[in-house]
Amino acid sequence: MFISALLTSAGINIAVCVVLLSLYSILRKQPGNIGVYFGRKLIQEHLKRTDPFWFERFVPSPRWIATAWSTSEDEILAIGGLDAVAFLRLLVFSYYLHVSCASIELLWATDDTQANTIRVTGCVYHYKRSRRIKMEYKSLARMRLAQIAKDPANPSHFAKAPPNSSHFGEAASPNPSHFTVLVRSIPWLPGKTYSDTVTDFFTNYYASSYLSHQMVYRSGTVQKLMSDAEKVYKGISHFASASIDLSCQPSFVRCGLCGGTAHSFKMLSRNESIIIEENKPGLAHLDSTRSREECAAALVFFKTRYAAFVVSKVLQSSNPMIWVTDLAPEPQDVYWSNLCIPYRQLWIRKILTLLATTVFMFLFLVPVTLVQGLSQLDKLQQTFGFLKGLLETRYVRQLVTGYLPSVILMLFLYSVPPLMMLFSAMEGSISRSARKKSACIKVLYFTIWNVFFVNVFSGSVISQIHVITSVKDIPTQLAKAVPQQATFFITYVLTSGWASICTEIVQPFGLLCNIFYKFKQQTRNIHHPDCALSFPYHTEVPRVLLFGLLGFTSAILEPLILPFLLVYFFIAYIVYRNQFLNVYFAKYETGGQYWPIVHNATIFSLVLAQIIALGVFGLKKSTVASGFTIPLVILTLLFNEYCRKRFSPIFKNFTAQDLIEMDRRDEQSGVMEEFHEQLNTKYCQFSLSDEIAKVEESTHSTKSHSLDEDKEVRQGLGYPTLGSLNLNGMQQVVTWLSMLSFHERRSQHQTPK
Amino acid sequence: MFISALLTSAGINIAVCVVLLSLYSILRKQPGNIGVYFGRKLIQEHLKRTDPFWFERFVPSPRWIATAWSTSEDEILAIGGLDAVAFLRLLVFSYYLHVSCASIELLWATDDTQANTIRVTGCVYHYKRSRRIKMEYKSLARMRLAQIAKDPANPSHFAKAPPNSSHFGEAASPNPSHFTVLVRSIPWLPGKTYSDTVTDFFTNYYASSYLSHQMVYRSGTVQKLMSDAEKVYKGISHFASASIDLSCQPSFVRCGLCGGTAHSFKMLSRNESIIIEENKPGLAHLDSTRSREECAAALVFFKTRYAAFVVSKVLQSSNPMIWVTDLAPEPQDVYWSNLCIPYRQLWIRKILTLLATTVFMFLFLVPVTLVQGLSQLDKLQQTFGFLKGLLETRYVRQLVTGYLPSVILMLFLYSVPPLMMLFSAMEGSISRSARKKSACIKVLYFTIWNVFFVNVFSGSVISQIHVITSVKDIPTQLAKAVPQQATFFITYVLTSGWASICTEIVQPFGLLCNIFYKFKQQTRNIHHPDCALSFPYHTEVPRVLLFGLLGFTSAILEPLILPFLLVYFFIAYIVYRNQFLNVYFAKYETGGQYWPIVHNATIFSLVLAQIIALGVFGLKKSTVASGFTIPLVILTLLFNEYCRKRFSPIFKNFTAQDLIEMDRRDEQSGVMEEFHEQLNTKYCQFSLSDEIAKVEESTHSTKSHSLDEDKEVRQGLGYPTLGSLNLNGMQQVVTWLSMLSFHERRSQHQTPK
Repeated sequence: MFISALLTSAGINIAVCVVLLSLYSILRKQPGNIGVYFGRKLIQEHLKRTDPFWFERFVPSPRWIATAWSTSEDEILAIGGLDAVAFLRLLVFSYYLHVSCASIELLWATDDTQANTIRVTGCVYHYKRSRRIKMEYKSLARMRLAQIAKDPANPSHFAKAPPNSSHFGEAASPNPSHFTVLVRSIPWLPGKTYSDTVTDFFTNYYASSYLSHQMVYRSGTVQKLMSDAEKVYKGISHFASASIDLSCQPSFVRCGLCGGTAHSFKMLSRNESIIIEENKPGLAHLDSTRSREECAAALVFFKTRYAAFVVSKVLQSSNPMIWVTDLAPEPQDVYWSNLCIPYRQLWIRKILTLLATTVFMFLFLVPVTLVQGLSQLDKLQQTFGFLKGLLETRYVRQLVTGYLPSVILMLFLYSVPPLMMLFSAMEGSISRSARKKSACIKVLYFTIWNVFFVNVFSGSVISQIHVITSVKDIPTQLAKAVPQQATFFITYVLTSGWASICTEIVQPFGLLCNIFYKFKQQTRNIHHPDCALSFPYHTEVPRVLLFGLLGFTSAILEPLILPFLLVYFFIAYIVYRNQFLNVYFAKYETGGQYWPIVHNATIFSLVLAQIIALGVFGLKKSTVASGFTIPLVILTLLFNEYCRKRFSPIFKNFTAQDLIEMDRRDEQSGVMEEFHEQLNTKYCQFSLSDEIAKVEESTHSTKSHSLDEDKEVRQGLGYPTLGSLNLNGMQQVVTWLSMLSFHERRSQHQTPK
Repeated sequence: MFISALLTSAGINIAVCVVLLSLYSILRKQPGNIGVYFGRKLIQEHLKRTDPFWFERFVPSPRWIATAWSTSEDEILAIGGLDAVAFLRLLVFSYYLHVSCASIELLWATDDTQANTIRVTGCVYHYKRSRRIKMEYKSLARMRLAQIAKDPANPSHFAKAPPNSSHFGEAASPNPSHFTVLVRSIPWLPGKTYSDTVTDFFTNYYASSYLSHQMVYRSGTVQKLMSDAEKVYKGISHFASASIDLSCQPSFVRCGLCGGTAHSFKMLSRNESIIIEENKPGLAHLDSTRSREECAAALVFFKTRYAAFVVSKVLQSSNPMIWVTDLAPEPQDVYWSNLCIPYRQLWIRKILTLLATTVFMFLFLVPVTLVQGLSQLDKLQQTFGFLKGLLETRYVRQLVTGYLPSVILMLFLYSVPPLMMLFSAMEGSISRSARKKSACIKVLYFTIWNVFFVNVFSGSVISQIHVITSVKDIPTQLAKAVPQQATFFITYVLTSGWASICTEIVQPFGLLCNIFYKFKQQTRNIHHPDCALSFPYHTEVPRVLLFGLLGFTSAILEPLILPFLLVYFFIAYIVYRNQFLNVYFAKYETGGQYWPIVHNATIFSLVLAQIIALGVFGLKKSTVASGFTIPLVILTLLFNEYCRKRFSPIFKNFTAQDLIEMDRRDEQSGVMEEFHEQLNTKYCQFSLSDEIAKVEESTHSTKSHSLDEDKEVRQGLGYPTLGSLNLNGMQQVVTWLSMLSFHERRSQHQTPK
């Protein structure tokens, strides 16, 4: 039954994969699906919609595989950022670790008595594996450092700016986040606005490096602000008696909303207040209402990267709960609505989220044990007698044991990432990337506990309440329990791995949305960054890491899982490369901060596998071999500790040396002063500048970039560009106002994919 | 038997206490014991030896109690530093917490059914207790901040310098440690000395704030260095044809050994090398040999406190294992021999120490279980049949059950602090105070585990191997087990508390040493700081905290322990105040960093007590009350988390605001420049400057400070001062050379008391 159930499952999944991959190669050529399958290219490379000949459109072609395979790592880095590279490296890395695993297992299988050979080989492979793990960590750390030093702001920025718009030859524009410190928990001083307090504090203590600041506003106040802006606009137009050129308005509004707000308003209210009060009494209360709507948070800009970094690292006040400083996230990465959370709430929120996550993790046991019941058919037959007839049917039997459990589990698992994303948002992350990273860790814990441990424990001998009677017994219990779940894990690899990777490439959800939009005769602005998907690291990284864990632990006694895993890693590598190239748009990134998670999870998997090996040796009464495994566990832990000391600080910090060098380079090249002037327009709380930039861009530039492999798509449908639109300043203001509430809602309540 | 055994124990201990306290009040008046009982005063206040009339000398007097009681906290702060204040506060704090505890217990005892009253009262007291705990933390944090802002260098320095030697009126001299960064793991560059590398690095990246640096030398190279110094001296004297005034030599040698070494030597070798080489070929290899003996560590001096603090906080290099920066300890606090430990070893050392400590903790079980056997006499009689006759005797029985167990345990426990101190030294602490603090934490864990938990678990129902079958049962098991050990804990308070506090004041070890010295007709330099004892925080803090734990946990079911504890806290308060005033010399201090340990241990005790209360309610089937205790536990933990967020950063960091203010104040008052010039003479690896300072001081100053309460001691014995000594420069060099090896050995292998 074991083999036949497995074959059923494998057969179904292979069929599904072949069908889906073929379907993809057809669907991607349909002009109507361009928004689904080429989201990133539409935004970043201004891909034009094309129509291949009709017969070409309905024949599957493997061309995309070759393109995905041949793209270099540097291109991926430029397109998807360091996170994408880290993710693809994780796949390659897992592949190689499991190949070495497979070699050991082969040796193991061929000669069960040659304990010495196995030990020596195991040792060699352990050494090789550790070297590879260390090498990857080092390589990622080096790439991160190189990326920071290159300072290409964000890859999306990088790609968005046309090459000829760069003022400084080859040098990319500095990353504004390096110069910016997020200050939270600004103390409230009577008779002063938060903005004044910030100015006073930083001009007092950091006079030499402080540049300016930008307050964070409560998100509900955006309408208020906009009407204020209108009032100001009217006031000015009245005051200046219509002598102001309307075409310069866009830059004024942009400045008023996205930076330097406090300053430009203050100048107005201080110097011109008397005149304005005479003219427009409605303006008098402007300053006071605004100060009420300010949050106790601000973005403070500094003259050098080093100064900003130092301020973010140092405890500012003798009350550590006020003047809390952190390096700001990149402009498009800021999670604005969380910046206003009072800092005193944050630790409570963190504890509550932790509690909620833990409770959820354990309540999830209910569906999982149900699922587990399905794979143990005998139990099920005993419980539900009336099913006996049905379950006797051979085909139903195989379906129920081989396929159904993991499908149900997967469906339940689909609810987990959005919930964890919600928890992470409630936790108070200041950036979208930090929220996703935090969700990734939560999903990882959740997956390892609920997919691995619960299945191992509930479906085996250890299903009593007294799970663990003694620490000494754990290895033996694991060694007994894990092989019993081998079938389940293999089918899990097939469904959650193979099938889902093919679902991933077909993007059924995107297709459905596309059809829905067509049905409702609406057009989506598929050129807008907000419409593009961002890569779901928080679901994909835990999945791959779980497969790593399954591979390491199951392979000791059930090496059959390995070929399935290797195939998975291979397909995933191709598919995800393709997706990074075409679909996902890197709006924000962590700069490779997923790698420490990968590293720790891999070490955990290795140690767990070694503990299971210990149990196996114990069951085989091979004391020499188990005596040999204990130092291996200790060595692995020591190795991990070394890597933690050596590499993990690089992923949490910038280094003084690098920052000072970068500051010097920019100061010498003269970039710095120009950049200082632009700095306070970089952070846009209410994301209007994107709109402006877009409209301006589409007005002035008709340039579009394209790559060779998209010829089949880009053949003259003549997708309407916005080039014909010619909005003057006044029209633009009206457009922004109408778009505002929509964007605000979307940018703040954007739910994860 | 319970009460009688207790009474025997109490009787013995009360008698011991009365005898010892009386003995102390006599012994302290004997002129020969001045070095034992007035160590601190001799060093800091130049107390003169006095002889009271013979009849006064042999009559006990309680005057010292009044003096100890009436000394203000500010005086204690000036004398013993913040650590002393924190320790005394711990005693007062424990006293008050147990008084409130006693009140609850009284209520409890009077009416067992009024569950509501108890709950409300418990809640009120819990609130009051939490408020007190928070208040103390806040108060200590404020004192720490005030002390840093006042910046009185070290209290011992403060007291050592005569008031009229201060150049700047009321302002104390800045603390050199605030300006100094300890750099470890300096990379080795071929063709360069470490010193050159340091100069290059800091002049490159911190040109505006870097002042100078001082290399750390391998301790074995001190003889080499001294002979080098001699060579240089001879070289110079030859070169300058004896035109150099010999009387300026001390400052040259001091400089050559204790700071600016690299610079003064380098200047010589660069500018005068040709001349010197012509004259003295022996000097040519000086630079190269010295560079070989340098460690990869240096003390780097900065112009401002803020600059030094920033450098210590920031990751310097992209390899986090090189250019490791920490704020330097105070000069007399540096643990020089640990600075040379390669930084790569440190994490391994830490792990090994952790392992060693854990192993030791569990191996210690053997004597403890033996001790526990004694208190359960029936078991002992069964095991050793031949003892039956002896153990039937009533007196022996009481002695064995009531007194002997805790005496044996105490004797075993005496071996623990030195061992933990050794572990902490091996761990690589860079300062003596950090070593002591680390030892304190180790001893605390050790004590709580081996005195509390092992006794509770081994001596009760839970003595099977399956200690804990389910987490749910822990409270019940504890509630059953703790009262069974009440007798043992009360006797433990009597022996380890009462008796040891009286032993502490009599200082038997010091007395014995004194007699030994007299017997061998040697005189010790009792005026030298190295001869004074430093307060053993690592034994006393854990002891008091253990008593707190015993009080909170035992008092729920056995409130009899409370009066014994309250008496202990009271006597300890008086005795330790007296000891701080007279005996212990604060050579170094952590600046109140023991308080976070105290806080965490108190919270742990409270939570444990609440868990036991939960078990008690469970046993009494009072579900309402136990349902009420669970939120109490959660609230306590949340409260702890809040305190950790709010106060603990202050104990780990300086704050930018304070440092910048201090820098400004000093710059405006003009202290700074003068201080910069002296800065590189402050750190003395081979502690000669102390000698010089002492000799100079005793040569030039005959001033001695005295306080009123010491009249009984200070009556004209005419203790010989060093005022008659008149050493010229050359003599001093010879003296230093002879003292050197002695001091080096002592300063590095100084074992804890």
